[in-house]
Amino acid sequence: MTENPTITFMLNRKSVREFKDEQPTQDVVEMIVRAGQQAPFAYQLGSLLLRRDTQNNPFNAPLYFIVCVDAHRFEAIMARRGWKMGSNDLSLMVIGIQDAALLAENMVIAAESLGLGSCYLGAVPYYARDIIVEFNLPARVFPLVGLAMGYPAEDRPPRPRYPLNFTLFEDKYPEFTDEMVAEAMQVMDDGYLAQDYYRRINYMIDLDDDRPETYTFDTYSWTEHISRKLGLWQKSPKSILASFRACGFNIPGEN
Amino acid sequence: MTENPTITFMLNRKSVREFKDEQPTQDVVEMIVRAGQQAPFAYQLGSLLLRRDTQNNPFNAPLYFIVCVDAHRFEAIMARRGWKMGSNDLSLMVIGIQDAALLAENMVIAAESLGLGSCYLGAVPYYARDIIVEFNLPARVFPLVGLAMGYPAEDRPPRPRYPLNFTLFEDKYPEFTDEMVAEAMQVMDDGYLAQDYYRRINYMIDLDDDRPETYTFDTYSWTEHISRKLGLWQKSPKSILASFRACGFNIPGEN
Repeated sequence: MTENPTITFMLNRKSVREFKDEQPTQDVVEMIVRAGQQAPFAYQLGSLLLRRDTQNNPFNAPLYFIVCVDAHRFEAIMARRGWKMGSNDLSLMVIGIQDAALLAENMVIAAESLGLGSCYLGAVPYYARDIIVEFNLPARVFPLVGLAMGYPAEDRPPRPRYPLNFTLFEDKYPEFTDEMVAEAMQVMDDGYLAQDYYRRINYMIDLDDDRPETYTFDTYSWTEHISRKLGLWQKSPKSILASFRACGFNIPGEN
Repeated sequence: MTENPTITFMLNRKSVREFKDEQPTQDVVEMIVRAGQQAPFAYQLGSLLLRRDTQNNPFNAPLYFIVCVDAHRFEAIMARRGWKMGSNDLSLMVIGIQDAALLAENMVIAAESLGLGSCYLGAVPYYARDIIVEFNLPARVFPLVGLAMGYPAEDRPPRPRYPLNFTLFEDKYPEFTDEMVAEAMQVMDDGYLAQDYYRRINYMIDLDDDRPETYTFDTYSWTEHISRKLGLWQKSPKSILASFRACGFNIPGEN
């Protein structure tokens, strides 16, 4: 048996969307951020915006962090050393998103260990222009992901994950059999249905007008939900490119 | 005092580049991967390649993971549900890199808690074509970052990080004063110099031919090192775009 308390925090972790009003102390906030900062980095490109306005935070969370890919800060350092950013912005983002995500995930685990829950908000980049205004962001700071945090007012079981053999591939990436794919789908779908997950949040993604709805909350589950997101959303790169541009990043691409 | 054992694992964590020969048991490997899988996700896009060939692994680590952004797997699920990937590949990557990085960071912390050390290898995307061949990767799997792991054969202190006030910005992003930037630089540079970090790894990034070298290992430290990386490396997006293309991703951009 290799499980230990740290791993238990990770295995039991689930997104929390209902929070108590209690404001975590400044000590707790700083300890969580310090644990985040100590995450491995390539260039230490992650930085954090924080809003403690419970009324206006997502899920009325006491803490709302916006995790940023921050080139502005290091460019200020480069300037003092007589350097200019040379890297193209696509390479920079591939690394910078990782720096920011590692920082955020350490915060999530530190928070769990202190009794706080959290929830990521992935749509943040699409609100970049609002965030620039609210936080007076300089150019070269990209709001990557939101992280709502506080003491949980709900206690749900963790959500399922793919079977291990659908995630870990030793030496060779396998050719998936129908059985492997079907099994992974069933683990995910049964797990979400057992928690009545989509009925509880009362959310089924609308189909295009010409496709009839054939699901109910008795059958609609994770694979259908994510298929709809990835099938229907963000078909055009226009809005993500506009967000990068608004933040002063010029992402080069194939066309 | 809010520190606890889980947070201590995070605060004491440092990259390890010397490993004992001992192979972690299969139980340990699976527990680490399970903790990784349980990380929060948007679309569960992270997957893992694993090689246990100590002779050929970076730093001769017993375990070498390559953390991938894997759209192939979910596209197999979508096909069984009658869907096709609709999202553009830039939006997909912004989220997918996060999914993969959160998974990897949970693995790093789980490993720490079990006595294993680790080191990320950020150059992996630039070797995508070799990895495709070695692991027989199908299209739509992008090797994002390497993660070498094993029982440490070195014990160094953790490396410094920026001061908290250079990372956490409440309500407003500040205008940096010269003092703030200089202080952050000094914390980083003094910390690396105190560990004789670059002399020990015997690595100073070469300047362009026309710039004379003015540093020695007595003065060369983190801000100069990273300035050179970001000043000199990856000026063209050609190689990262070629890697995405080799993996079957078409990244749209501004030009």
